[in-house]
Formats: sequence, C-alpha cells, structure tokens
Amino acid sequence: MRRRLADVSTPARLASSGEGLGRDELALAARNHGLPLEAMRYDVTPPGLHYVLTHYDIPHVPDAAAWRLTVRGRVRRALSLSVEQLRIRPSVTTRLTMECAGNGRALLSPRPVSQPWLVEAVGTADWTGVPLRLLLDEAGVEPDAVDVVFTGADHGVERGVEQDYQRGLSLDIATGDRPEVLVAYGMNGAPLPPQHGSPLRLVVPGWYGMAQVKWLRDITVVDTPFTGFQQSVAYRIKQETEEAGEPVTRIAPRALVIPPGFPDFMSRTRVVAPGPVLLEGRAWSGRAAVASVQVSTDGGRSWHRAELEPDQGHRWAWRRWSYRWSAVPGDHELIARARDEAGNTQPLEQPWNRGGFANNRVQRVPVFCPDPGPTDPT
Amino acid sequence: MRRRLADVSTPARLASSGEGLGRDELALAARNHGLPLEAMRYDVTPPGLHYVLTHYDIPHVPDAAAWRLTVRGRVRRALSLSVEQLRIRPSVTTRLTMECAGNGRALLSPRPVSQPWLVEAVGTADWTGVPLRLLLDEAGVEPDAVDVVFTGADHGVERGVEQDYQRGLSLDIATGDRPEVLVAYGMNGAPLPPQHGSPLRLVVPGWYGMAQVKWLRDITVVDTPFTGFQQSVAYRIKQETEEAGEPVTRIAPRALVIPPGFPDFMSRTRVVAPGPVLLEGRAWSGRAAVASVQVSTDGGRSWHRAELEPDQGHRWAWRRWSYRWSAVPGDHELIARARDEAGNTQPLEQPWNRGGFANNRVQRVPVFCPDPGPTDPT
Repeated sequence: MRRRLADVSTPARLASSGEGLGRDELALAARNHGLPLEAMRYDVTPPGLHYVLTHYDIPHVPDAAAWRLTVRGRVRRALSLSVEQLRIRPSVTTRLTMECAGNGRALLSPRPVSQPWLVEAVGTADWTGVPLRLLLDEAGVEPDAVDVVFTGADHGVERGVEQDYQRGLSLDIATGDRPEVLVAYGMNGAPLPPQHGSPLRLVVPGWYGMAQVKWLRDITVVDTPFTGFQQSVAYRIKQETEEAGEPVTRIAPRALVIPPGFPDFMSRTRVVAPGPVLLEGRAWSGRAAVASVQVSTDGGRSWHRAELEPDQGHRWAWRRWSYRWSAVPGDHELIARARDEAGNTQPLEQPWNRGGFANNRVQRVPVFCPDPGPTDPT
Repeated sequence: MRRRLADVSTPARLASSGEGLGRDELALAARNHGLPLEAMRYDVTPPGLHYVLTHYDIPHVPDAAAWRLTVRGRVRRALSLSVEQLRIRPSVTTRLTMECAGNGRALLSPRPVSQPWLVEAVGTADWTGVPLRLLLDEAGVEPDAVDVVFTGADHGVERGVEQDYQRGLSLDIATGDRPEVLVAYGMNGAPLPPQHGSPLRLVVPGWYGMAQVKWLRDITVVDTPFTGFQQSVAYRIKQETEEAGEPVTRIAPRALVIPPGFPDFMSRTRVVAPGPVLLEGRAWSGRAAVASVQVSTDGGRSWHRAELEPDQGHRWAWRRWSYRWSAVPGDHELIARARDEAGNTQPLEQPWNRGGFANNRVQRVPVFCPDPGPTDPT
C-alpha cells in the first residue's frame, strides 16, 4: 500500500495512566523551551529566556529586506509592504506577557500527548510595531468583511494536514484598539530574533500564543468565518474528539511563585533555611486586570493576601507580588492563586480538556526547610 | 525520623526498559533547552538558540559592577578584579562550538535519568575575554601548584551534596595556550546574558560544557588534585556506580544534519519532495580538526563523502558540510558521520556509560518522500 503524507502524522491521543513521556514529546521539549522560573525576577524577560513554541521549523529568512507583507482579500487597495515601509509608519510599543495555550498540559491526567509544558510557557517583552487597524484602514476593508486571516512562513504537517501556520481574528478584534493588535518588527528595542518571528509577527495582547502568528507574510480579509486547521480543529476546548468545542482565546489568570531558596538538581525540590523568606512571583490575566493574589504555604489549608506591586501602567504585562513567610523546619507546599477584576480565578483542581488548553490550575511548589541541628551538613 | 538535606536528592539511577520520561526529567528539559537543529544554518548561533544547561538556578546578579573575581590560593599575589578591570586587560575572541557532555543521553538504553538530551545540546558563539594564563601570570603561581579550581555562584544540592558549582583544570591546561582558556565577559559582542554566566564565565575551547564554569567568582590554585563533586563523582565515564571511572574532558567528534524539507509537528518526521535535495549540516571535534564527513541516505548501507566548507580559521568552531542527494519516493534514513584528524570517529552503536556522557553515536534522521501521484494532497 502506498504511503501517504498523512502517514507521517498520528492522530491526537491521550497518554495512558502512568505512561511516561515519549520520545516525540521529548523532541518538542528539547527544541522549544520555557522560562526558567527564577527569571520571573526581571520585569522584561532577557533575550533567550522568554518561552518559545514553534509548530514546525523556524523559517530560513536569508534577507529580511526582501520580505514582503501582503494585505489583501476584501479590501479596496491591496498592500505589499517591506519591513522598512512598516518602520516609517506610526508605531506603538506594548509590554506584554505572552503564554502558550498549552501551558500546564503535562500536569494533566490523562495527559494530552503534545508539547509537554509544566507551568513555564510564559515570558514578557516590549513589542514594537504598527497598529493593525491602521494597516486595515489604509487598505480599506469592504463592508462584507467578517474575519482577518494571518499566514506565517512556517510550514509543516500536523495531524495529517499539510499547512502554513494560519490563524484568524474577527474583524472587530483585528480593528479594535482594546487591545491594540500590532504587526510587530521589534522585541525589546531590537529586531525580532529568528525564533520570535523575524522579521514580522502578529501581537495580540491578552491572547494565548497561538494567536501571535510569527513570520507573518500575509493578511487576508475574508467574508466568511475562517475555518483553518489551527482555528477549527486544533486550539479548541473539548472533551471528546468529535465535538466542535469552544475556541481558545484570551489568557486565563495565573500566578506563579519564583521558587525560593536553592534547588536539588534532579528533583527540583527547593531548600530554604528556617526564618524569614520573601516569597515573590508574578500574576497576569488576559481577561481583565489582576485584582489580587492569595498565597498558601501549607498546600492550600490556609491562605494569605499577597502584596501586589503598584500598577506600572502596563495593562498587558504581569504584575509582581510578594508575601513575607517565616519558614520553619519541615516540608511545605507553596501555592499562589490569582484573581482578576472580572472575577476569574484559578482552580485548585484541573479543568481538563482534550487538548490541554487554557489550563490554569494553581502551581504547587514543594519546599524543604531543614532542621538546623548540629548533625545537619548545612 | 528527622529528614535531612540529602533526602530531597535521590541517587543517580537508570530508567528501566521501556520506562518513559519522568516529571523530574521533564522539569529539566522544560527549563534547559537545545539548539533547534535548523538553526545550524547560522555560523554563529543567534541569541536564545544556543543550548543552555544550568545545574541549579540562574543566580541573581542585581549589580554586575559590584561583581568581584578573586584569584587566590597557591599564588604570590591574590587578585580581586571587577569586570571593568578585566575589560581593560588584553583580550581574545574565540569562535567556539560548545556541547553538553550529556548530549545524546536520552537515546541511550538503558537511559541514565538526568537532563534528557537527544542530540541538540550544542551551539556556537564568539566568546571574548582575558586569557586565563595572563591572570595566573599576574598572580604568580607557586611552584607546588597542581590544579586550578573554578567556583561559580550557582548553588544547589546534587545527589545529596550541597555545593557551589566547581570544576578544576590541571595547571598545564589552565596556563596553556592550545587552547587558550578565557575568563569571558562577552558573547557575540555583547555582555554575557544571565543564562550564559553573566557577568563572567570560564571558556575552555574543545572541552564539554561542564568545564565552562558560569557565574565565575573565584579561581583558586591548589597544590593537591581537585576532588570536588563535579570532578570526581559526576562527569566520570564508568559502567558501575562504585568505579572511579575516567574523567569527561574533550568533545568527541560529531556531525549533525540540518533536517531537510519540513516536519510533522508531533513525530518530527521530515517530508521532502522527490528530486534534488541539498543536505547540509555541521561537524566538530574538540580533540582535533574535522577531517571528513560521510553521509548515508539509506540508514548506513552505503556512504558518500560530503563536501567540507573550506576552513575559515576557526579551529574551535563547527564546520559546515554539504551533500547533494536525489530523493526518490519512499522512506529514508539520513546519517552523517564525522572523523577528526586524530582518527576519532562516531560509533554506529551506542558507547554506553552510566552517566550518559560523551556519547557521540551517529544521529539518524527519518525522512519521508511522498509519491507525487495525482491522489497525493501535496
């Protein structure tokens, strides 16, 4: 029987009970990467520490000056723009916390077999670019327009479907200014690095990473709802394969703890000395501003209100929080839990779905505080 | 029974037959990361794509100007140097391919349970710093000196032992100029990023990553052989736990293929169209210059000599190679195999050891070339 392209792909599946990670999941974990959690110290994530997820390969762009972004479809004047032509247009810089929709997936039971994130698929950057609404204004959107479709240069096969990476936004999101969607050419004051979409990418503040199309080469305005693979098949919240499911959209609230003390190499258990420990971390939500963070140092039996850093005016970026803990010898479990101003919060138990998307169950950080006895090597 | 610090650590172990990766291995894979193999296109790896392995946390260095590097022990004049004082000394820039000693570990059977690399723990950078031999000259090494011990600011527990990360070099390597060991403050023309050792690190061309002490804060010359944990317990090539084993030192030769065509998201199988395909990759060895690369497109049944890019004068950096392949429909397995001028080469079968170190078995890249028939979706 002749092998077909679809044969190199396997259908989405769930790991069986107790099944360790496979080589396919490891291959994704080794090439993509999360934020080492201690790097939440930095307001803006230093280059190379921001999370990265690439569905296929990082495209080869030998000459960024030759890149063209086309704007076409249901518009009066199609555009073809170089990066330089975008740079001379009005620009906006937005500090943005970006998170992968699959963050937390590897902690689910049963585990959806895909990129196996624990909780570290996050990062914060200053993105600079042209507001998308200005480009769409310039092109002149026709009255029958419904969706705007964004196509990247990354190409591959996924679940049997060969594709360029494509996502759509409804016209009201694409042309709105809350948030201001950007066609970005700059990250932290420099051109985009290859893995973050060089030379151009979409930036949609508050949305999970799947909306942030990298290596952006085309914007097409369409008069029917976009039903591409990444819109209608992947990135849906559903319990059963055959369900249509709900789309993954904005980032659910999450707080993470900067793991205190120092780690064990292999178990990553934290060790802290007895006495005062300043617990710090970050919290964010793409749905509304962060309203509060609660901290537990006893695995959720009691909760304390953390201090939220004053609002720095970066609505789409994470906020620093802190809580003064007094560690006593023994084993502890730290938890932080964010709530946003729309009342969204983090569940203590897993909100399971088949793709492992938008999972914002609270993080649990095991900490060991040794007895400072004379026989202890510390 | 009172818990001790050692209890947060487990002894080194081997995975049992068929055991998938555990959460501990995943936690390391998610925070450390490899080079996405398509990024071997770049002579110098762009920021954020170079492999990173951190045993403990990335240390917090709020003020690099306050950092001091001490040089002491069996020297006539102890030194305490700021980064600025190092910058005004004579400097050398070396283009260097660095590889983790554990690269290839996750492919071993049985698999040593540790950072689970496939083959991607590599990267190339231009490192700038002061030759170590000049600093040791300045300090005046005593005649009874044997080893030089390097201490980083990264602190943790490993296999029950609390430690600052420390490694030693024999005096002849430390003061030699083939290779020229550097105390580096620059990477690719910029200050070191946090994850690569900011503000100072050791650079030992040709040696595996464990020798390249990051966040370097002390250099101590000693008159007895250094027997710290990372020298005498970890990073030893041995078959049994109780053996002393041989030290891990210089990088064994390796060639890797830039995976051609495009990937399937989950299996990472490559898809290429029938016809000419330029296979390209990189090859390196820390033991001698690369002499040749052989390529097989049929899983090792036949071999062809690849073309090596002319020597660019970067002895310690990888070399580009290429081979023109004509792909025909069907399944293929690509292999590249490097040989260096000292006659070292890559084994086809695994050279197993208990830590999974210095494993340079050849990479195998599965490729599917679809039949361009009328029923094929491509």
